[in-house]
Amino acid sequence: MSVMTELVLPNDGNLLGNLLGGRLLHWIDISGALAASRHSGSVVATIHMDRVEFKHPIPVGNIVELTSYVTWAGKTSMETAVEVYSENVLTGTKHFINKVYLVYVAMDANNMKKNVPVFLVNSPEERQEWDSAVLRRQKRLC
Amino acid sequence: MSVMTELVLPNDGNLLGNLLGGRLLHWIDISGALAASRHSGSVVATIHMDRVEFKHPIPVGNIVELTSYVTWAGKTSMETAVEVYSENVLTGTKHFINKVYLVYVAMDANNMKKNVPVFLVNSPEERQEWDSAVLRRQKRLC
Amino acid sequence: MSVMTELVLPNDGNLLGNLLGGRLLHWIDISGALAASRHSGSVVATIHMDRVEFKHPIPVGNIVELTSYVTWAGKTSMETAVEVYSENVLTGTKHFINKVYLVYVAMDANNMKKNVPVFLVNSPEERQEWDSAVLRRQKRLC
Amino acid sequence: MSVMTELVLPNDGNLLGNLLGGRLLHWIDISGALAASRHSGSVVATIHMDRVEFKHPIPVGNIVELTSYVTWAGKTSMETAVEVYSENVLTGTKHFINKVYLVYVAMDANNMKKNVPVFLVNSPEERQEWDSAVLRRQKRLC
Amino acid sequence: MSVMTELVLPNDGNLLGNLLGGRLLHWIDISGALAASRHSGSVVATIHMDRVEFKHPIPVGNIVELTSYVTWAGKTSMETAVEVYSENVLTGTKHFINKVYLVYVAMDANNMKKNVPVFLVNSPEERQEWDSAVLRRQKRLC
Amino acid sequence: MSVMTELVLPNDGNLLGNLLGGRLLHWIDISGALAASRHSGSVVATIHMDRVEFKHPIPVGNIVELTSYVTWAGKTSMETAVEVYSENVLTGTKHFINKVYLVYVAMDANNMKKNVPVFLVNSPEERQEWDSAVLRRQKRLC
Repeated sequence: MSVMTELVLPNDGNLLGNLLGGRLLHWIDISGALAASRHSGSVVATIHMDRVEFKHPIPVGNIVELTSYVTWAGKTSMETAVEVYSENVLTGTKHFINKVYLVYVAMDANNMKKNVPVFLVNSPEERQEWDSAVLRRQKRLC
Repeated sequence: MSVMTELVLPNDGNLLGNLLGGRLLHWIDISGALAASRHSGSVVATIHMDRVEFKHPIPVGNIVELTSYVTWAGKTSMETAVEVYSENVLTGTKHFINKVYLVYVAMDANNMKKNVPVFLVNSPEERQEWDSAVLRRQKRLC
Repeated sequence: MSVMTELVLPNDGNLLGNLLGGRLLHWIDISGALAASRHSGSVVATIHMDRVEFKHPIPVGNIVELTSYVTWAGKTSMETAVEVYSENVLTGTKHFINKVYLVYVAMDANNMKKNVPVFLVNSPEERQEWDSAVLRRQKRLC
Repeated sequence: MSVMTELVLPNDGNLLGNLLGGRLLHWIDISGALAASRHSGSVVATIHMDRVEFKHPIPVGNIVELTSYVTWAGKTSMETAVEVYSENVLTGTKHFINKVYLVYVAMDANNMKKNVPVFLVNSPEERQEWDSAVLRRQKRLC
Repeated sequence: MSVMTELVLPNDGNLLGNLLGGRLLHWIDISGALAASRHSGSVVATIHMDRVEFKHPIPVGNIVELTSYVTWAGKTSMETAVEVYSENVLTGTKHFINKVYLVYVAMDANNMKKNVPVFLVNSPEERQEWDSAVLRRQKRLC
Repeated sequence: MSVMTELVLPNDGNLLGNLLGGRLLHWIDISGALAASRHSGSVVATIHMDRVEFKHPIPVGNIVELTSYVTWAGKTSMETAVEVYSENVLTGTKHFINKVYLVYVAMDANNMKKNVPVFLVNSPEERQEWDSAVLRRQKRLC
């Protein structure tokens, strides 16, 4: 599990003082890549990002916490989940922003796909994520 | 229709010299926001991004062209399509990267949603985009 | 013809909330390089930028549209024109900012100048740009 | 405890492909500010950073993990510790880089110092950090 | 006289490892603004940049030194000169890159032009710059 | 002696409109590296930064001036001092922010330490800096 915490600075915001959607997408991609890199021991390339909702505006000055973990691994590709929360340090309130699934492939130094280690399911929660990952995969392929 | 052209510079790339997925997502969000801003005459906030595929790695030095246009407009929200192509200036080859749908809401100066103009369908192609936008909308809501 | 559209974000602005001159100059250089890269099928290096006027301040939140095209090509160098407009999405007003001429040389992988394709003049407008480009060239050389 | 994980991208590196010292210092400052912001429920300003060693070069592509927590709180200022590790995902090796102490003051919306909550020591480790924080404070004041 | 020294980092370079033209233009604009700001005691806006040559490529790793000073002041506008040198620290060689003239106007807090102090010519060199500035001004106006 | 002047732009600031501590630390590191690079004729890596105080908040719009020079040189490492002043162009007031000592090692192209030239003390001031540098070095080693 990889945790990334970001302080939303003025240059991350739009005209209304809220975090730019594209900036959050960039953090989500990096966060998922951290989990996939650690699992595969390699550089990874993003090949898929499932749909993303932005449930709450995140004002400049808030903290964004992104937690990522691998949910499924195939031969050369891995699915990771990224959970995003925003936190207002002045009021202490936290908001769930979204949970996003991304797919990465492991790459070797010659820019070719390489095999990734088997992912061992250790708990009922991981089993559930794995099973739903298989369904998400079928949906992406068709 | 809004066209954005970006030259992939070294600081947009990963260790293997390919465009970072998160950087492309940021450009896609800005590109869609341009179309939605122009239609609504207002600042817009991203509330949804449909799933994104990355069909080809885009090496540093390539050009990325993003074309965006509004496909559907409701009371305060709009859907835009963003089409992404990469172009290798040395060889002249172009690759279709992806087509992404995003939803934006128009915001007034007090950070409140505001109404957007009616979107008039002018051609069979626009009719087809509108009809499929309605289906995508139903899928997002359920 | 290459079109680049940029949304002026808060971190592109100065203390008064207007686009920094240097930021616009950076976009103009990239825009001209896109046209020269496409014409020559190569990496290009900027060797000259003609004088630039900033006719209007461009507030943060505006859209900047840069259109570039080749006007003249010699053995290894090319002149490009970049036309810059700003657009206020809230009011719909557009301003002509400036038209800038830049000269680029085509470079090979060893950082040496390489020959560029002949530029074929196809219209009276292109003929006029070419003729004035020849005059601008003489002025730069003396 | 706040955890920040950063992937060292090419634009974070120097000519030799190692993380720039100044870039790491920036992350350390943000990391410490996260802990101080959460403790005080306010915006914070850095007023002191103790000496920093860079025990190992951190190559581009590595992961940097920064963990921060409050060690001491006075009337308006707080000391935080930031522990930095680098991790090579290809080899799995981790290096301890450094542990840095920083002092922040809590600020209100008028840019004035404000009081911070009492920091309650809960464990022998926290007691030890507190006691050494008091010594570091005396050293800084003289 | 304002001196700005910049280390050309990897993210300032193009594909061939040389400083991007647009990045240098940005530094030139900031450098000139420093001199104009200091003379006028105000925020300034760029309204004109004379033509710029790039006499030498500047490889990543080099140092760029920009020296700026006011050459002429009118009622609300000032001309500044910026002299640019590159320096290779490994070989000790220095290159003259260019000398650029820019015009700035002083702005008050309401985004309106404000008067600037008289510029007193103190030496024959300053007299010469002033006289040629007057000629450059006439050329820009016609 | 190397002089670096920076204009504090909006994206360098925090929520209260003051320069981020980490941004200043980044500039201090670059400034010290300039002096060490020039002395050694090589790329340098930061290995130590002594403690840093932030004596005054530096509002966005101010100018920051950093002056750096070598104070001591050993076999492969050098100590540099960086003096930081802020300047409010609107009021003309200047503030001393801090004086920081950093240690750099010279690196060759293979990422190995290399010898640096002898540093010749030329004045009583340089003698004093050298003597105190020797004391600082002993303190860092123990």
